[in-house]
Amino acid sequence: MSQSYRVAILGATGAVGTELLQLLEARKFPISELTLLASERSAGEVRSFRGEELTVEAVSPEKFDAVDIVLASAGGSTSKEWAPIAVKAGAVVVDNSSAFRMDPQVPLVVPEVNPDAVEAHGGVIANPNCTTILMSVAVWPLHQKQPIQRIVASTYQSASGAGARAMEEVKQQARAILQGQVPPTEIFPYPLAFNLFPHNSDLNDQGYCAEEMKMVQETGKIFAASDLRISATCVRVPVLRAHSEAINLEFEQPFDADEAREILKSSPGVKLVEDWQANYFPMPMDASGRDEVLVGRIRQDISHPNGLELWLSGDQIRKGAALNAVQIAELLVERNLLKASAPALAL
Amino acid sequence: MSQSYRVAILGATGAVGTELLQLLEARKFPISELTLLASERSAGEVRSFRGEELTVEAVSPEKFDAVDIVLASAGGSTSKEWAPIAVKAGAVVVDNSSAFRMDPQVPLVVPEVNPDAVEAHGGVIANPNCTTILMSVAVWPLHQKQPIQRIVASTYQSASGAGARAMEEVKQQARAILQGQVPPTEIFPYPLAFNLFPHNSDLNDQGYCAEEMKMVQETGKIFAASDLRISATCVRVPVLRAHSEAINLEFEQPFDADEAREILKSSPGVKLVEDWQANYFPMPMDASGRDEVLVGRIRQDISHPNGLELWLSGDQIRKGAALNAVQIAELLVERNLLKASAPALAL
Repeated sequence: MSQSYRVAILGATGAVGTELLQLLEARKFPISELTLLASERSAGEVRSFRGEELTVEAVSPEKFDAVDIVLASAGGSTSKEWAPIAVKAGAVVVDNSSAFRMDPQVPLVVPEVNPDAVEAHGGVIANPNCTTILMSVAVWPLHQKQPIQRIVASTYQSASGAGARAMEEVKQQARAILQGQVPPTEIFPYPLAFNLFPHNSDLNDQGYCAEEMKMVQETGKIFAASDLRISATCVRVPVLRAHSEAINLEFEQPFDADEAREILKSSPGVKLVEDWQANYFPMPMDASGRDEVLVGRIRQDISHPNGLELWLSGDQIRKGAALNAVQIAELLVERNLLKASAPALAL
Repeated sequence: MSQSYRVAILGATGAVGTELLQLLEARKFPISELTLLASERSAGEVRSFRGEELTVEAVSPEKFDAVDIVLASAGGSTSKEWAPIAVKAGAVVVDNSSAFRMDPQVPLVVPEVNPDAVEAHGGVIANPNCTTILMSVAVWPLHQKQPIQRIVASTYQSASGAGARAMEEVKQQARAILQGQVPPTEIFPYPLAFNLFPHNSDLNDQGYCAEEMKMVQETGKIFAASDLRISATCVRVPVLRAHSEAINLEFEQPFDADEAREILKSSPGVKLVEDWQANYFPMPMDASGRDEVLVGRIRQDISHPNGLELWLSGDQIRKGAALNAVQIAELLVERNLLKASAPALAL
């Protein structure tokens, strides 16, 4: 190993932070020093990394003084507060929040799709939203063959997107319902166990929620395809940690389903899961804990001559968040981009 | 009440049969005599109706000798076997199975959509599939205003569609998973609790499953719109008894979302559930046990100038099956159609 880096995880005790820690170890990321940062509330907790016990520290400005890379997954307002401080101190921030994603100066990167976008970073690189990452990995290889004109997506999103406590709440809800008791709803506005509801993020004037607009806008930015038309219906379902998506694609010309299948079979980050005899296709239980986005049920759309239907499941915490961030960090190391090449972001 | 009828429920002990019994009582269907029929296995079980205890009898030909209406919900092969016998004995069969739905001689009826279709019955009237009924009730009023060109639907289907034992299995699975045990999978091919999977009905050569093709073909028949193009992705989710559907509609001209909302506000069988401030829309937990299909999140589709998005939840056992069948029976009574007006079906 030629060089190693001083890494900080901001939001180290959350669901994504926990996964980041595991991935950095499993993927042997070249770390010389690892700092675990979180809010005052979580400071003092202990986490294990490469057999050592690390104590989580409360975030403060001086914590970024000797850090090369920050992997941030502590929510938008936390990133807005601390990313500028980290960048000013000389670190590159891979940010998992929505804070900077649509900033034209900030690259929004899915390594399987637009790795070159990292080159122009000004200190911050944004990790896309989970639903966007999973869809991008699955449909980009098809888009390369023939540009997609329109996407209509319906999501089946697990509790993990709302954090570790949300995952715990769904289990508590299920326990309560099975015992005939009233399910607790502290994190979610409604019971999610044995129920589901449209994603409860802020609604815009057009009636789309923030989660849906992330799929619409972020995919356009990552694909550099401003004319790609997307509609989405995002739904929270009682699954713990993998999202699924039903995706309807329209092309300008017919896209043969078998050709799509062949393309996806050898696409990076994709695992084709289709057993038509056994009626076996991607499922959250199989996607959980896996790096790849599981894609299957590729069909010619019988309602549109140029339509294609597909179905995917992907681990929301892993490829939908932590893994993609670590892959971006790996890309920065590979390309020797750990010092900003563009003017520092006006944060 | 002018007249009352001799009614038989075939499949009286199943999830839909149980609901039929409750609805016939609650809606005061004019019954002079009620016969509960089931397989040999369930014979002898006792059910209560209007305060009386009725014993479930094993189905046999002579059971139909003095029956005016049969409400059948015991599966396709059972209906194929017994419907001809019941019709020959002079009864009218409202059949909840898929056995006769696409038979051109058999009316396929959603009372809110095509009540007049009952007129031409030849002894059997088919009750559509649950997903089809729920979608039909919600989109027919819009189709009346401006013909729908294309539908892309994604479903979120509860366990009840696979019967009462399937509902029990999901609860058992959840209990097992919460205790760290292996979930049982007797009814479903895979664990459904905290998981989901594409509907496991037979796949055709185009890659569509039978459940999806029901939505495609049955909706076309009910709407008498053979050029209506439909694609669907049907997915089983860990919910007990209400289905939800994300529906993307394309029209020839733009369809104003507010106008759609106004239309649906006063459409039969529909309840508009939209609180944009509170982010409150149709959910299975609210649809369960209700007659109406809950419809909401009506939005202009930002990916298509003539597109409209909507979201619904409806009780699969009630409007998706038993209620629709009872409504058909009520229609037959109202229109005095309890003797076949068309030549008897060549069954």
